[in-house]
Order: sequence, then structure tokens, then C-alpha cells
Amino acid sequence: MSRLDSFIRRLLAQRACLDFACAAISDLPGPVLELGLGNGRTFDHLRERLPEREIFVFEREPRPHPSCWPEPRYLVRGDLEQTLPQAQRWLSGRVALAHADLGTGDEERNRRLASWLSRALPPLLRPRAIVVSDQALEAPQLEPLPLPEGVQPGRYFLYRRRGEGGCAEERDGNRR
Amino acid sequence: MSRLDSFIRRLLAQRACLDFACAAISDLPGPVLELGLGNGRTFDHLRERLPEREIFVFEREPRPHPSCWPEPRYLVRGDLEQTLPQAQRWLSGRVALAHADLGTGDEERNRRLASWLSRALPPLLRPRAIVVSDQALEAPQLEPLPLPEGVQPGRYFLYRRRGEGGCAEERDGNRR
Repeated sequence: MSRLDSFIRRLLAQRACLDFACAAISDLPGPVLELGLGNGRTFDHLRERLPEREIFVFEREPRPHPSCWPEPRYLVRGDLEQTLPQAQRWLSGRVALAHADLGTGDEERNRRLASWLSRALPPLLRPRAIVVSDQALEAPQLEPLPLPEGVQPGRYFLYRRRGEGGCAEERDGNRR
Repeated sequence: MSRLDSFIRRLLAQRACLDFACAAISDLPGPVLELGLGNGRTFDHLRERLPEREIFVFEREPRPHPSCWPEPRYLVRGDLEQTLPQAQRWLSGRVALAHADLGTGDEERNRRLASWLSRALPPLLRPRAIVVSDQALEAPQLEPLPLPEGVQPGRYFLYRRRGEGGCAEERDGNRR
């Protein structure tokens, strides 16, 4: 398979997962997180599919296509490992959908970041929130979901934040 | 349509046109030109589909994915407006397939380059050679071809070099 074939498959998988997630949160209030802006294509997709939602974009060095700049109040600049924990203050348990497209060509860095995100992201999520990620995440609060038809395992990842009573840690978390 | 949707459509159109072209030249000898390397995805696609062909890549500043570097003898560095006319010396009338993906966000520059390419490219092409282009070209030697199924007009462009006797200019060109 050529890199063109592979790239097309990845984009189709990404879009299928985002579209699934947008439909899945239709009855779930709360803002959306876009972790990593890139050229802004998926941000543009999310804001088109979810015109009523607040979408907070986290990006160290925003360099999107000129038409894909988030409004300044929705753009959180800085290193994600600093900004995401800080967002705990105002987003804790509120987020309905998070999309993380953070992978680079550096596999070791990707694994480290995915491991960190698996711990840092769940506290921000509302029960039943959906996570769409280009990296595999592993956390007791995150239930892996089946991928949309046509998406090969490993190309993209979908999770649902377990609901109230889903596991012991969840119940403890909700009591705090 | 979101920019993600639009990007996917463009890549599908690009691949459909390249695949059509690779099939269309199966009985036509001659090298392939890749005008513009970018990250090397379409170069990788062409070399996978056409493993027996020489593929000459013209690029001012090659910065492909590390796995997509052409062999040095097939990489022509420099400004296309210098290097393509020079290639006339060794490629004249030999090329079986040319793919030009040269567009930028600058529409005025794109139009200028397409107009220049419409004059500079045909002398390199063998009769019945296929041209795949992200910009519309206009030349008496180039016959526009119908696009593959599913490709919307204007997303990508296909041409065939008219055969011997196709027009006066063609016959003059062949006599020289």
C-alpha cells in the first residue's frame, strides 16, 4: 500500500470516528476539546458538524490554514502537559467530546504522550463523553468502543467515559 | 463541506486520476515525470504502481517523508521554470506520463504557472502520453479526458497528448 493509500485510509478513519462521536454526543451537553490544531481541518469539521458547541483548541504553536483560526477565547496556547492540567479548574467533568490528534513520527514520544494523556484526560470528561484519538489510550475510566464500519483496528481509536457506577474509581471520583 | 471533507475528496480524485493514468500508459513506453515532490505521497504511489518505470522528480526544495526520497539520479533540483526547459535536451518527446501537483494558496501564481506549464510540458511528451494535473492546462496538443467516476470536474485534471497528425502544430513538431 502506498503512502497515498495509507494517508487516505487514515483520513477516512478519522472522519468516520469524528462523525460517529458527533452523533453519539447529541444528547450529552458540554464543550468539545480539540487537542492539537495542525492545519485546522478536523477543527473545521467539528465546528461544522457541531455549530452550537463550544470547541476549545489546545495547541502549542498554532499554524492553521487562515480560514481555520479558532476565536482567541477558545484557543489555549502552550504545552499541553501544562495547559491541560490547568484546564481542570474550569473544565473538570464537563467535556462531552475530546479529539486528540497528537502523533508524530517519533513512536517513543507518541507512547509517552498517550500514557500521560490516559491519566490527564479522564478527569475532564463527563460520564458517557466520547474520546477520539490517533493514539491508543489506556485508562480504567475509558471503555474502548467498536470502530465505525470500514475502519481498520489501530488506525484510529474510540472510547467512552464510563458512566456513574461504572467502576470503583469512577464512584470515588464522583463522590469527591 | 468541511476542509476535512474537501481534502479527502481531493485526495480520492488525485488517486483515481493517477490510477487511471498508470493503467492508460501500460502499452506506452517512456519515463514518468513527477513535477513537485511535496511529502512524497504521490511519488510513492507512482513508484508502487509503476515499478518498472523511470520516474524523474522535479522539485526546488525536496523535503519528503524520509522513506520517499527519490534516488539522486532521478531527482532534478531547482526552479521548474529553469529545469523543465533544460530537460528538453534529454526527455524531448519521450515522456509517457506527467503528474503536476504544483498548486499553492496563491491563485494568481497558480494561473501563471499553469499557463507556463501548458507551453513547457507538451514538447516533452510522447504522443498519447497522459498528463495528470491539479491545475487546468490549455494547449492545442493536450486533449482533455473525461474524469474517472466519482471525481468532480475541477478537482483534478486529465489530458492526453494528441497523437501524430492530431493537428498542424503537432505535425510541425514531429518534423523538426
